[in-house]
Amino acid sequence: MKSYHVTGAGTGSAGLTLREHAVPEPGPGQVLVRMRANAVSFRDALILADDYPLPVVPDVVAGCEGAGEVVALGPAVRTFGLGDRVALTVFPDWLDGPFGLDRAAQLGSSLDGALTEYRVVAEQALVRIPGHLSYEEATALPLTALTAWNALTGGRPLLPGETVLTLGTGAVSLAAVQLALLAGVRVIATTSGGPKAVRLKELGAHEVIDRTAEPDWHQRVRELTGGRGVEQVVHVAGPLDQSLRSAGIGAELAYVGYRVGAAPVAPPVDARLLFASGVQVRSVAVGSRAQFTALNRALEVHGVRPVLDRVFPFAQAPEAFRYQQEGGAFGRVVISHG
Amino acid sequence: MKSYHVTGAGTGSAGLTLREHAVPEPGPGQVLVRMRANAVSFRDALILADDYPLPVVPDVVAGCEGAGEVVALGPAVRTFGLGDRVALTVFPDWLDGPFGLDRAAQLGSSLDGALTEYRVVAEQALVRIPGHLSYEEATALPLTALTAWNALTGGRPLLPGETVLTLGTGAVSLAAVQLALLAGVRVIATTSGGPKAVRLKELGAHEVIDRTAEPDWHQRVRELTGGRGVEQVVHVAGPLDQSLRSAGIGAELAYVGYRVGAAPVAPPVDARLLFASGVQVRSVAVGSRAQFTALNRALEVHGVRPVLDRVFPFAQAPEAFRYQQEGGAFGRVVISHG
Amino acid sequence: MKSYHVTGAGTGSAGLTLREHAVPEPGPGQVLVRMRANAVSFRDALILADDYPLPVVPDVVAGCEGAGEVVALGPAVRTFGLGDRVALTVFPDWLDGPFGLDRAAQLGSSLDGALTEYRVVAEQALVRIPGHLSYEEATALPLTALTAWNALTGGRPLLPGETVLTLGTGAVSLAAVQLALLAGVRVIATTSGGPKAVRLKELGAHEVIDRTAEPDWHQRVRELTGGRGVEQVVHVAGPLDQSLRSAGIGAELAYVGYRVGAAPVAPPVDARLLFASGVQVRSVAVGSRAQFTALNRALEVHGVRPVLDRVFPFAQAPEAFRYQQEGGAFGRVVISHG
Amino acid sequence: MKSYHVTGAGTGSAGLTLREHAVPEPGPGQVLVRMRANAVSFRDALILADDYPLPVVPDVVAGCEGAGEVVALGPAVRTFGLGDRVALTVFPDWLDGPFGLDRAAQLGSSLDGALTEYRVVAEQALVRIPGHLSYEEATALPLTALTAWNALTGGRPLLPGETVLTLGTGAVSLAAVQLALLAGVRVIATTSGGPKAVRLKELGAHEVIDRTAEPDWHQRVRELTGGRGVEQVVHVAGPLDQSLRSAGIGAELAYVGYRVGAAPVAPPVDARLLFASGVQVRSVAVGSRAQFTALNRALEVHGVRPVLDRVFPFAQAPEAFRYQQEGGAFGRVVISHG
Repeated sequence: MKSYHVTGAGTGSAGLTLREHAVPEPGPGQVLVRMRANAVSFRDALILADDYPLPVVPDVVAGCEGAGEVVALGPAVRTFGLGDRVALTVFPDWLDGPFGLDRAAQLGSSLDGALTEYRVVAEQALVRIPGHLSYEEATALPLTALTAWNALTGGRPLLPGETVLTLGTGAVSLAAVQLALLAGVRVIATTSGGPKAVRLKELGAHEVIDRTAEPDWHQRVRELTGGRGVEQVVHVAGPLDQSLRSAGIGAELAYVGYRVGAAPVAPPVDARLLFASGVQVRSVAVGSRAQFTALNRALEVHGVRPVLDRVFPFAQAPEAFRYQQEGGAFGRVVISHG
Repeated sequence: MKSYHVTGAGTGSAGLTLREHAVPEPGPGQVLVRMRANAVSFRDALILADDYPLPVVPDVVAGCEGAGEVVALGPAVRTFGLGDRVALTVFPDWLDGPFGLDRAAQLGSSLDGALTEYRVVAEQALVRIPGHLSYEEATALPLTALTAWNALTGGRPLLPGETVLTLGTGAVSLAAVQLALLAGVRVIATTSGGPKAVRLKELGAHEVIDRTAEPDWHQRVRELTGGRGVEQVVHVAGPLDQSLRSAGIGAELAYVGYRVGAAPVAPPVDARLLFASGVQVRSVAVGSRAQFTALNRALEVHGVRPVLDRVFPFAQAPEAFRYQQEGGAFGRVVISHG
Repeated sequence: MKSYHVTGAGTGSAGLTLREHAVPEPGPGQVLVRMRANAVSFRDALILADDYPLPVVPDVVAGCEGAGEVVALGPAVRTFGLGDRVALTVFPDWLDGPFGLDRAAQLGSSLDGALTEYRVVAEQALVRIPGHLSYEEATALPLTALTAWNALTGGRPLLPGETVLTLGTGAVSLAAVQLALLAGVRVIATTSGGPKAVRLKELGAHEVIDRTAEPDWHQRVRELTGGRGVEQVVHVAGPLDQSLRSAGIGAELAYVGYRVGAAPVAPPVDARLLFASGVQVRSVAVGSRAQFTALNRALEVHGVRPVLDRVFPFAQAPEAFRYQQEGGAFGRVVISHG
Repeated sequence: MKSYHVTGAGTGSAGLTLREHAVPEPGPGQVLVRMRANAVSFRDALILADDYPLPVVPDVVAGCEGAGEVVALGPAVRTFGLGDRVALTVFPDWLDGPFGLDRAAQLGSSLDGALTEYRVVAEQALVRIPGHLSYEEATALPLTALTAWNALTGGRPLLPGETVLTLGTGAVSLAAVQLALLAGVRVIATTSGGPKAVRLKELGAHEVIDRTAEPDWHQRVRELTGGRGVEQVVHVAGPLDQSLRSAGIGAELAYVGYRVGAAPVAPPVDARLLFASGVQVRSVAVGSRAQFTALNRALEVHGVRPVLDRVFPFAQAPEAFRYQQEGGAFGRVVISHG
């Protein structure tokens, strides 16, 4: 079997090295998963670019998102059977409850990842994937869709009729648009360009604001909410200021990312604005296995599918990474094992 | 101006007496509302039948649900203007937060009600009605739709993809079906008859169970939820046992009513079942003004309208009560002032 | 090594059989615990009496509460070391979040228990015990103290100055008195007798009501709370009626047990009272590992110790069970391995 | 009767002007309060210094904190009687639930304040004061103690055994130390000087850190919490950075103020730190009437008294303001009407 490893002080996809291994055997409470699809994420790209803020084990198997089929069972496995279609959780130790240091080990950085043909996984680090999704679709869930789900449902409860603001067309934001709509909220999405605006509208966003045409777009958000501001922001990147100005008193800003394009960190946040906005800022770090299960149930009930941009074969994983880094994708870049 | 009063140890609509009054003048912080529509509720019927468990002031003006137009402003009114379309809150002192004894005064029983041509109301006891609703539709909100909203959103937060169980086709249950759908949940509704089943399906219920055909309907609910049971029950009437057996561990049973048809009280609840179900039972008493405002926002964003059965003119209010008491209505019985 | 097993259709302690085993070896992620103390619980007594409502595996090792020392480590153990002082969690799969069927396996009934000299335990099914507690004290925590902690902190948040009602002097109630005091609430405790009243006062209860002297003790609770009722009840046993009548609107009744003395089930609950009380009823099933950790931190910060009644040597475990079943203990009956 | 008004582009206490008025009469639902004590707050000082970020009505009656006696009742007053000892709520429209723009009017800035001999108040804008407190003590509650209460209890629920960090010896911080202790948490307090450290210890703080001696005091907080950081910060002033670095993942930073000494705004917040801390930041704006009532109950049950520094007579209110502005007080500066 083959695995892609993160090697050297990798710069971009140069850091991916394919290695040959024996297929491992599952121990007690573990299963063997034949990986069938992986997704390429912004996080994985940062790791390859040696720009990830958390520790990366040398020569770690790459990739935090993967879906596949259970092909062998270790002793004492209780909840999965042969042929089960599963996805791996990014944080194998984060089963339920809030995030914490005792559950921070993650695939593709501190632990071997999913970009491999076979992988042994503890059964508690797997979820069943929704029946209506292909492996290529399901692999879009563990990092980005789950982050969007946690952003929307993990803190302040959303009520139907409230308004959610999403920023741009990154993977988390697209998932947030889709999931927010399931919760009956009104979605205001920003974007930088016309064609993406059309696609956001097609995805169901009630209002789309072109940030290029309206640099003071937070004022437009205020107008669209009768001056009150939105109840929830899924803040994936960029300066916090406009997000805070777009949100009403008591709103929650789910804080998913702090970068601005190529810049490693967004500009600092005005202390008075942070106070006066009356907004609660909540850091979001993916989600627990329990949240993943709830996400899958919601997708299944509503027949919702993640947005995919392009699928590469496993042999062309480096090309998939390069394509993803070029930007411009609308939806996930996925690797299929065929 | 005319008002209907609750008189004598009234039995049924015989207890309604029409009286003539001078149009009152609003004081500081008060407005004069020209009532335009009222709804007839099960609660009002109990009051007329002298079967209400809480104190009723003799000769009180009847009716707890009403909508109308602001036609005069007292001094120092800050939030409403002439011509505003408004609904009265059933509990004028319950503005926000949880229910409590200091906010228990209610229209049509301990306080004069809404079944009158004009009424002076403190501005804090009013909400604006959604723009897409007529007065006849809006008057269906203050008691029953708000109860359904509180049942669904006031306790355990609902997640898209979860399942809600509603019982029958009473006003609260119909509103619960409509509102649960907005929240992206799956709705299982019970009913006693075929035509009502069709209408529940038309309203959007995912599954409808005929209680007559399936007396052990809780088993059917279990089957429909893969054995787990629902996450939320809106329990409006009837024995609690089957509702508890239909619900999963950690589910919430929003406990809205305890009667069984003509019987004043449902059978007692088995103490072991109550424990072993793992269900949280939460009594629901209508809702606060803040919840009413949130309900209206949800209705407006989604263009949802309450289900009306029949509209009577103000002069025929007693007939409206009689019609409502006959049972069989699907949706609200409403009184229009023309 | 020796283990006590639950054998036969056991009646009382007759059902305990001592067997000899080889000391087991820990596998990956597991440790070997040299058990040092166990506690005898009402739950264990029900299992021995063949009166437990959930499945009991034949010949299962008895006992759900145990504390001991880590004496060997399997491969890949990350969080414990040799010599660590630990307690076992009653539900090894319930790590965090709410209770559920996927985490319902429990020691001493569906899984082998703790009444044994050595036991292999997955590291995620252990917690470190507070430094100020002996093993004999720490073994009083996993079932009863954790249940009390969950009852007080797992649902409606308690505020300092609120009032909690506890019932009697069973192990959960004594722990609830101790833990409620830590949270700055006022404690009203009921009891059946004078000497116990004195001990409850010594434990810190603000008010103690003698149920024998005041059979309508809920009226006394109302008086002591200015008519409003308490904010929280830890209902361990007995009819729910008086507990509901003692609680205010919006209060929570943490529903820990439904028996009445020797009777298997308390009388059924009046459906109107359940509604009209305005109380939220929440079933409590022990607690998660995360809650256990939080409990330990609270005990450690405040130097609180569980109340022990009597300690038996391991060889006299059957006598410990008999003593516990006689009733009358004030505090836990504990088994020490010496 | 006399009232102090905020006049001119006031610089400091020069902006207070004493005026003579007729004693007003209470209208429907209003009472007349004979003010007996006021407190001087940092907020009032900002208003006098023309440095308040929200609108101040010209010639408004000063002061947002006041306590007094009900000496006359308007018609239809339901909840207060003659002789009742009361405090005014700073936000008369904020009765319960979260803060919002519809409840933002406040005493002493957008509405006439409490620094007056008599004041008419709507009954819903009053709370009863705890029986064990003098008027001079009770007037220390409406702004600063209530802010501390909201900071501690209004967001993430505190558990006994958790750790709270307070900053300095301002009025909110001293109240936070007192109230946190009631909730059974461990308190780490920072201060700038030795004598204040002693007084914080006397107040009950478990650990006191001298910021002058330990400029990197957040490292000390980490050490004192086993590296994990505190669960709650009551951030009253100063740069957010060290507060964020002192808090653990999932902690809440109750964000009460954003100034740094004389500087109008703290330095901006690093966007990466804000994310990586995993802390939830929640703006706190005093509290609701319902929270005030809960605060009073807690104080009464525990017999806790606000810390007073010095009491001035009503005639010397300007001196009280000057004294407060000099800084250095430990506890509240209060004005007594004698």
